Amino acid sequence: MADETTGGRPPQLDDVQESIEDQLSVGASAAAATELAALRPPDQADVLEELDAPSREALMGELSAEALADIVEHLGAETAAELPGLIDVASMAQVLDEAPPEVAADVLRAVEWEIARGILAQMTSHRSVARVLLYADDDAGGLMTPDVIGLNENISVSRALQILRDSPLPHQKKRQLFVVDPAGTLVGRIGLSELVFAPAGARISDVMETDVISVETGTDQEECARIMSRYGLRSLPVVDRNGVLEGAVAIEEMVRVAEDEATEDMLKMVGTAGDEKLTGPIRNSIRNRFPWLLVNLGTVLFAGVLVSLFEGTIERLAIIAAFIPVVSGQAGIAGTQTVTLMVRSLALGDVSERDSRGVLVREGVLALVQGVVIASLLGLVVWVWQADFSFGLIVFAALLGNLILAAIAGVLVPLAMRALNTDPATSSAVIVTTVTDSFGILIYLSLAAIFISTLNVG
Amino acid sequence: MADETTGGRPPQLDDVQESIEDQLSVGASAAAATELAALRPPDQADVLEELDAPSREALMGELSAEALADIVEHLGAETAAELPGLIDVASMAQVLDEAPPEVAADVLRAVEWEIARGILAQMTSHRSVARVLLYADDDAGGLMTPDVIGLNENISVSRALQILRDSPLPHQKKRQLFVVDPAGTLVGRIGLSELVFAPAGARISDVMETDVISVETGTDQEECARIMSRYGLRSLPVVDRNGVLEGAVAIEEMVRVAEDEATEDMLKMVGTAGDEKLTGPIRNSIRNRFPWLLVNLGTVLFAGVLVSLFEGTIERLAIIAAFIPVVSGQAGIAGTQTVTLMVRSLALGDVSERDSRGVLVREGVLALVQGVVIASLLGLVVWVWQADFSFGLIVFAALLGNLILAAIAGVLVPLAMRALNTDPATSSAVIVTTVTDSFGILIYLSLAAIFISTLNVG
Repeated sequence: MADETTGGRPPQLDDVQESIEDQLSVGASAAAATELAALRPPDQADVLEELDAPSREALMGELSAEALADIVEHLGAETAAELPGLIDVASMAQVLDEAPPEVAADVLRAVEWEIARGILAQMTSHRSVARVLLYADDDAGGLMTPDVIGLNENISVSRALQILRDSPLPHQKKRQLFVVDPAGTLVGRIGLSELVFAPAGARISDVMETDVISVETGTDQEECARIMSRYGLRSLPVVDRNGVLEGAVAIEEMVRVAEDEATEDMLKMVGTAGDEKLTGPIRNSIRNRFPWLLVNLGTVLFAGVLVSLFEGTIERLAIIAAFIPVVSGQAGIAGTQTVTLMVRSLALGDVSERDSRGVLVREGVLALVQGVVIASLLGLVVWVWQADFSFGLIVFAALLGNLILAAIAGVLVPLAMRALNTDPATSSAVIVTTVTDSFGILIYLSLAAIFISTLNVG
Repeated sequence: MADETTGGRPPQLDDVQESIEDQLSVGASAAAATELAALRPPDQADVLEELDAPSREALMGELSAEALADIVEHLGAETAAELPGLIDVASMAQVLDEAPPEVAADVLRAVEWEIARGILAQMTSHRSVARVLLYADDDAGGLMTPDVIGLNENISVSRALQILRDSPLPHQKKRQLFVVDPAGTLVGRIGLSELVFAPAGARISDVMETDVISVETGTDQEECARIMSRYGLRSLPVVDRNGVLEGAVAIEEMVRVAEDEATEDMLKMVGTAGDEKLTGPIRNSIRNRFPWLLVNLGTVLFAGVLVSLFEGTIERLAIIAAFIPVVSGQAGIAGTQTVTLMVRSLALGDVSERDSRGVLVREGVLALVQGVVIASLLGLVVWVWQADFSFGLIVFAALLGNLILAAIAGVLVPLAMRALNTDPATSSAVIVTTVTDSFGILIYLSLAAIFISTLNVG
């Protein structure tokens, strides 16, 4: 299901789509299937996804188990989960037997457990699929393919080549080979190229790379991505707690993980979830976004209550109200910049706890420098506009103070979230803007209330 | 430089770092180098980056060109650019000759052109490096490695294996082979595994895959990432405008591109740039963020001016001011949710122009449903708090109208930006919040001004 989030439908596909839909509408499903077969599997999946359910069912009836297996890998989770409803259990088992076990596991995860068990029972590759199903789909165990070749360290290179030649695995799973001891424990790795061009008489243990990095089955996908990226691995072996080779995570999964994690961080910061689609059902969107809107209603109402406390001051001088959105809004923007950089830097490992003091000082200095300029500018505007120097000074002081607070909150809130074992993306942005809103109103209206007698506007 | 943005420093590295720093502080640079050599290259690069410049220079003096070449690949762009200042031109040329050409090109891009030219002149691999340097570093031509093997379609499989055996290229560059005609035009691809296990007498043209997807040198990195991800390619061949094979983009680059593009989108939305580092120089941050703060000062001041137009209304009833931040802030949050989803969906290709009408209707309905609930809740709070039903009704109507506008703006602004060939991430968020701020103030204070005589609060 690697393609679900990486779309990029080629424009010329629209013509084929139309032609296939036309043929299906007149019942020519065999002709439609022929046209579909001329496409590459990811494009076939795309065309199927766009069809309505009856057309999709008619077209699928024309496809062989092998052809469906090629397609199923590229279907979105939602469409793949509909498959068992469109074709019978025995055909479904046949399709999934043809697909790689990690893809079959993804499909089975998406359907109800009763149905999944029925399909699994009729599959011949049920053992390797069940092995992947044991794990959460965002753990190394759930991401890995169990189809890896573990060569015994004691065999010869020519014996190893014979094993590879006889292996039923597809070619792309023969590119990276692992080496195990007689107990199955991972002890090394070797690329096909190194093996092919090794001296003929050599043993595997002579030519393997012994510095092999591996993860345990329970390792989180983000951690897997970090290790693969850092050490330039195309394939990360996965072992059980005894070090026995269980499978390997392929680099293709990591491109998806990198996109997923980034999307997730980005959407979490505004209070919705990474799995929300603008083309999905509305109830999912409500479930994702509504709680956040409620939380924010609380925080903006709190700001409203703070303003109401200064009702007397505003009554005496209504123009004061005009600069509430200015002081709060400007610091909110600055705080959001800092908090976004912090969240992303923490996620990518660019900034760690031990850098935090330096980053705090840096952002504080930056806020002071930028703040003096921005706040002076605003103060000047207020002075000239309202012809009142004291008023300008109050707005200057309130904005400068709030900008420095925004920087401090922008650095500390994500660090605090992480220290509390909460994802820094989830709540940092709303906490920081609540802080800048509230503090902005408090400091500005307090200063205004204290110095109102010195003001000559109004 | 793949690791620059993907950090993930293992915690145990801190001990080694300390020990190496201790040894360098007493002048034992040879001992420090021995300790460094025990680490993996990405970790070596990490340790070097943390050192101060004099220590780094002392330690590098102890390393061979080969060892430095392994490290240089993993250094951040800034540190790599300092290298030519630390060691002489001849040594630098030697180091870059040992590194892959695409890495050497990255380093040379980071230094001044005069220095780069001096180094290039002394390199033996200057031709392949210059070929990469011709292109921007975010184009296929700049991302690719020129070190690819293009086998003539007319040779035999056994001849091809002999060529591979004799090739000086590292093993990992022999995993994916391309096939060219006598003019050098790309005509197919073949994996090492397919080649090794092909019938001995076969010709390359018999066993190659002829359905080969390629891009031209000028293709943008985001487009390359989309194609590789969609079609599951680990290596994307790059051709010139005549179809002649120039090199290939490796999947490792794509993990970095996926992270880069996501980070860029995320940071652009809050008005800073993807290349900003929280540990980098402050002047970069000012250059990135200050213009945005200025733009925003303009938009928040505009909101302030709008409020000031209603000075008379607020003077008559100061409590009205308390709900300005509530109506604006709440719609700002909802608009940000929609705009973030739109920007990310457009970037990942999940939503295209042809879906836009559906998405607009969907978000409009969602805003209506959520808006009625949220605005009723707020209206109720105002009614009870201020003991005034009309006041509650005014706030209800203002918030509901503003939430619906937020959804419409959240969908249309990114689409308009894209239609204008501007990156939807850059300015969408600020435009949408400016719209919700201004409209929120306008509709709320207008309603309040019109119906103020019906209000019995205050």
